[in-house]
Amino acid sequence: MIIVMGNTSTEEDLERVVGAVKSAGLDVHISEGVEHTIVGCVGDVSHLDRNELQVLSGVQRVVRVMQPFKLVSREFQEEDTVVDVDGVRVGGSRVVVMAGPCAVEDREMLLETAEIVRDAGGEILRGGAFKPRTSPYSFQGLGEEGLKILREASERTGLKVVTEVLSPEDVELVAGYADVLQIGARNMQNYSLLRQVGRTQRPVLLKRGLMSSVEEWLMAAEYVASEGNPNIMLCERGIRTFSQYTRNTLDLSAVPLVQELSHLPVVVDPSHATGRWRLVAPMARAAVAAGADGLIMEVHPRPAEAKSDGPQSLKPDTFRQTMREIAEVARSIGRGVNNG
Amino acid sequence: MIIVMGNTSTEEDLERVVGAVKSAGLDVHISEGVEHTIVGCVGDVSHLDRNELQVLSGVQRVVRVMQPFKLVSREFQEEDTVVDVDGVRVGGSRVVVMAGPCAVEDREMLLETAEIVRDAGGEILRGGAFKPRTSPYSFQGLGEEGLKILREASERTGLKVVTEVLSPEDVELVAGYADVLQIGARNMQNYSLLRQVGRTQRPVLLKRGLMSSVEEWLMAAEYVASEGNPNIMLCERGIRTFSQYTRNTLDLSAVPLVQELSHLPVVVDPSHATGRWRLVAPMARAAVAAGADGLIMEVHPRPAEAKSDGPQSLKPDTFRQTMREIAEVARSIGRGVNNG
Amino acid sequence: MIIVMGNTSTEEDLERVVGAVKSAGLDVHISEGVEHTIVGCVGDVSHLDRNELQVLSGVQRVVRVMQPFKLVSREFQEEDTVVDVDGVRVGGSRVVVMAGPCAVEDREMLLETAEIVRDAGGEILRGGAFKPRTSPYSFQGLGEEGLKILREASERTGLKVVTEVLSPEDVELVAGYADVLQIGARNMQNYSLLRQVGRTQRPVLLKRGLMSSVEEWLMAAEYVASEGNPNIMLCERGIRTFSQYTRNTLDLSAVPLVQELSHLPVVVDPSHATGRWRLVAPMARAAVAAGADGLIMEVHPRPAEAKSDGPQSLKPDTFRQTMREIAEVARSIGRGVNNG
Amino acid sequence: MIIVMGNTSTEEDLERVVGAVKSAGLDVHISEGVEHTIVGCVGDVSHLDRNELQVLSGVQRVVRVMQPFKLVSREFQEEDTVVDVDGVRVGGSRVVVMAGPCAVEDREMLLETAEIVRDAGGEILRGGAFKPRTSPYSFQGLGEEGLKILREASERTGLKVVTEVLSPEDVELVAGYADVLQIGARNMQNYSLLRQVGRTQRPVLLKRGLMSSVEEWLMAAEYVASEGNPNIMLCERGIRTFSQYTRNTLDLSAVPLVQELSHLPVVVDPSHATGRWRLVAPMARAAVAAGADGLIMEVHPRPAEAKSDGPQSLKPDTFRQTMREIAEVARSIGRGVNNG
Repeated sequence: MIIVMGNTSTEEDLERVVGAVKSAGLDVHISEGVEHTIVGCVGDVSHLDRNELQVLSGVQRVVRVMQPFKLVSREFQEEDTVVDVDGVRVGGSRVVVMAGPCAVEDREMLLETAEIVRDAGGEILRGGAFKPRTSPYSFQGLGEEGLKILREASERTGLKVVTEVLSPEDVELVAGYADVLQIGARNMQNYSLLRQVGRTQRPVLLKRGLMSSVEEWLMAAEYVASEGNPNIMLCERGIRTFSQYTRNTLDLSAVPLVQELSHLPVVVDPSHATGRWRLVAPMARAAVAAGADGLIMEVHPRPAEAKSDGPQSLKPDTFRQTMREIAEVARSIGRGVNNG
Repeated sequence: MIIVMGNTSTEEDLERVVGAVKSAGLDVHISEGVEHTIVGCVGDVSHLDRNELQVLSGVQRVVRVMQPFKLVSREFQEEDTVVDVDGVRVGGSRVVVMAGPCAVEDREMLLETAEIVRDAGGEILRGGAFKPRTSPYSFQGLGEEGLKILREASERTGLKVVTEVLSPEDVELVAGYADVLQIGARNMQNYSLLRQVGRTQRPVLLKRGLMSSVEEWLMAAEYVASEGNPNIMLCERGIRTFSQYTRNTLDLSAVPLVQELSHLPVVVDPSHATGRWRLVAPMARAAVAAGADGLIMEVHPRPAEAKSDGPQSLKPDTFRQTMREIAEVARSIGRGVNNG
Repeated sequence: MIIVMGNTSTEEDLERVVGAVKSAGLDVHISEGVEHTIVGCVGDVSHLDRNELQVLSGVQRVVRVMQPFKLVSREFQEEDTVVDVDGVRVGGSRVVVMAGPCAVEDREMLLETAEIVRDAGGEILRGGAFKPRTSPYSFQGLGEEGLKILREASERTGLKVVTEVLSPEDVELVAGYADVLQIGARNMQNYSLLRQVGRTQRPVLLKRGLMSSVEEWLMAAEYVASEGNPNIMLCERGIRTFSQYTRNTLDLSAVPLVQELSHLPVVVDPSHATGRWRLVAPMARAAVAAGADGLIMEVHPRPAEAKSDGPQSLKPDTFRQTMREIAEVARSIGRGVNNG
Repeated sequence: MIIVMGNTSTEEDLERVVGAVKSAGLDVHISEGVEHTIVGCVGDVSHLDRNELQVLSGVQRVVRVMQPFKLVSREFQEEDTVVDVDGVRVGGSRVVVMAGPCAVEDREMLLETAEIVRDAGGEILRGGAFKPRTSPYSFQGLGEEGLKILREASERTGLKVVTEVLSPEDVELVAGYADVLQIGARNMQNYSLLRQVGRTQRPVLLKRGLMSSVEEWLMAAEYVASEGNPNIMLCERGIRTFSQYTRNTLDLSAVPLVQELSHLPVVVDPSHATGRWRLVAPMARAAVAAGADGLIMEVHPRPAEAKSDGPQSLKPDTFRQTMREIAEVARSIGRGVNNG
């Protein structure tokens, strides 16, 4: 952290700034320039709050030189993290596909979908048992009944299971059935939930908030990691912008950017990002070409009957075609997919 | 809800659309135009999901004519809701000021601040005991100890207390000390938390999410109301935009807009919205002129020592001056403030 | 400008950085910290491009300490600029109201509107003769015929005239009829147009672009000023955000912010910002309370017949009522309006 | 266009609405529903202004069923437009690469870059002679001298030339040297410029504005087409969002979306979108995988010496490597590149 003193600041201002830095356990290095005096902070600045310094008298600007995240940063760990989902490795050379319906609606539908996913090369089954819905009057998911159906589908097909957990008190319950705990976009800064999943060792799929910066997203991952759980997959799922033709704007540049800043694997969700099934295949191909370690997509045997998010679900045929296209693109950049 | 069929849609498409609407318990009114057939849905559409219809074959567009919120809508209740905070009425003719430090840091500081707030005409004391922080390494608040200090300050000064609750399991604890339960911006769509505060009768201050449309905000209020708690105050606190000179962009047009759509009172937080103390007074005046029913502001005896959000806290003198200005503006539009 | 060298940068990297700064005619001040070497640039940095430095090998970050704008900055001129529009002073103690229809549609309508504006206390008449329209098939304005009508209305009522100029080659023509040249939001970065109006001495109303930062807006003003025309009024008219209930989001915090950064007067356009006439009065009051030096509003004798932007135009009665409210608010903060 | 009347609207309201539609030369189809009366407009609605209708008494909502653009829409022309740039076909099976420096700085540099571009498989040379710069004090380009250098480079290498035109009065001059006229993002709604390039038959590269919706972008193309020039290439170059780690947010979903709505070819600019050279190659690969018909990238022999946009320019080696990667991805989706 570098503190730039204004050109009208006094000797006393400087003393108070130095005092504030030292009282946080850091050392300072002062350099008096022609127009500005600069105070460099030496030591571990992760406990130093930029806001506290900014308000001190005489301070013109506080510049953060280091990233505020630590355990999840590329500086802390140079080699890529590969998250092991009960044998399926996310972050390695193979692009991993997670697919399934938005919500678990009934047993037959889910078992049918699971077989479609497995046969096409998917490795992880998605499906919501607890659904966060904008309206209190919409279908909220089957709850534990849905979790049981997911587990049964997993046992029949060998697919691993990813499903969302909405509340700290449900973490234990969901972890009893799921291989991956999903944190949804709306909960990205639900810190009690983040801490709770951080206290397990279960892999976490952390979706980026609709209006979260890359930094806030990595800080959310830091919450999970700081509780002791390093098994984190980041998931880009579109951000909210002025552009309203698509549901959200898929920020694919976040993929290489996050890979530069962090060692964690990155997954892309083209279904929620676009909200339109016609755009899912091109965006899935683009995500793989950009370097994504995995994809999570919605597939439904009969989208027109889906209880939620039908417009963005792929039909089985389109899903199989998309899987073939993904495999080609993965190969073109030296990666592969399962079966592909 | 109106469903516009595309000009290449078939008779069978129409039948399936009509079936879908009827199976949701509604009736239809079909009108065949020259270019488009239109299906009007008759009955209570709050259980009908626009997405489900949009994906049906032959459907070109689904248009929602009514608002998706119900209990909190102006149609449902024409007269303004006045929330009674243990005698302080928010939503009536008087503009109510809530003020205090960002976080409760220690007992002396809080008692000192409370007296400043009360003497200047504030009616409700704010202060965080549980703090949501972007970094897991930042100060997270004093917890129950902070709640006790708030209660003591309330007893000494007569001010009511508003403080944030972060987790469903803390609702009972916080309600034991606070007069108003605050739902923070990051938790606006934390539905288990919304339901839990909805199960109390304690007044709720519901902050708008950084990324939330007015509709989503009112739907979040609907979650609280649908559980039986009608005592809701909405709080505009800035939205996230490309503009980065201020921390967020205060959307003051949301004040008259929400008053048109809903009967709930609206409070404005100029401190968090701008993040810069110099902008707090002008934005507080503007909020009152726009018709806000209340203000929530940060004041700190010594902002430079604040453990969080120092740059946006007013010093006591500036706070008193701001209160005088607010009183003048309130009078100019035929309202008043306490003591003002 | 301060250049922070990365902790793996070499001696040679440093030399090249110093060379680049010196070749731009500046001096350097080097300070070697424990973790980072910092290069301070001494001299007039307005010709130094931050991007050029950022790409140099070994550079971690380039921090701008000073604002990039100069002539329009508060540092350059401490006292407020008061723009004299042929006797009407914008930026002084009185809040100046500009009003009129979106477009000049015909002579009778404009003369009728001008009298309404003048009688209610407006001082400047607005009306578009050249209209920028999203669709090539929409009404594009009456052109010079419209300018003549505006001038006639001015002569009859004593109101000054503000109207938009779209193209560099039209500047002379428009300046032949108008007292204020308006640069529309879509043209805020049309640099040839900015230069051309900068070569006149005619007052300029520079609207903020829909997605322009405060810095870019002030840089656009710098274009005008750098050509020799200091008579610039800034106009906040809403920015584009994800929020779509209103046409744009009026960023009122830009008013005090710009007044801190610049000496130029600030005008607010609540009509275009909201796009809904019901929100115009509250936002006009709020703008005055926030400290705006002027307002520009749409008023139309019969909005339902307006050729453009009818939904946001005030009817004469509402306009007169709004003027009374504005006058009250202006008085409450120690300012006045004409007749008010 | 469908007009929904409110449930409190009167018979007279309805009559006035019908009158307004008929006076625009359209016919109506009225259907009286249980709760709402709906007025369907029959005929060519491109001249009908939704805003004019929305303000009429009794109108609850006006819904546009058809797109507002016409000549550039997929409905108007089903087959893809292939733009012929003097023999280089954009929009066909081959992905066309345009590359070169941000600005033409001097003759030697440009000739050197042109050979690098040609040898690596590029087909069109980019380079700015007239540069739109945020600051009036920054380098503004070499003007006609730069155009001459571009033409010389073209003659030596066989590359076609694309360069930006900033002002209507420069169109003829630039068209004397360039094969493609580029309209920059800041000028996307500079309608006099759009009309002027529309009066030539020279191919146009129309960049999407930073703040422009897909609809506004296609309407800008409609301006060009409506003047008689059908040779339009759309160029996605990133939109402005709250996310600030990259310069802009590349909206790749715009590629398949625009291909659905329009018959025009789409080009992607990963250099300006990201502003960071490290992200150019992954985003270029992603653009091709998403279906882009072309790419426009910045390459510079010595980025550290570039007069503008150095941080986003590729070095020759990185450019050659990127071209190889693009060729692989293009092949994986059944397309090719030149030489690739």
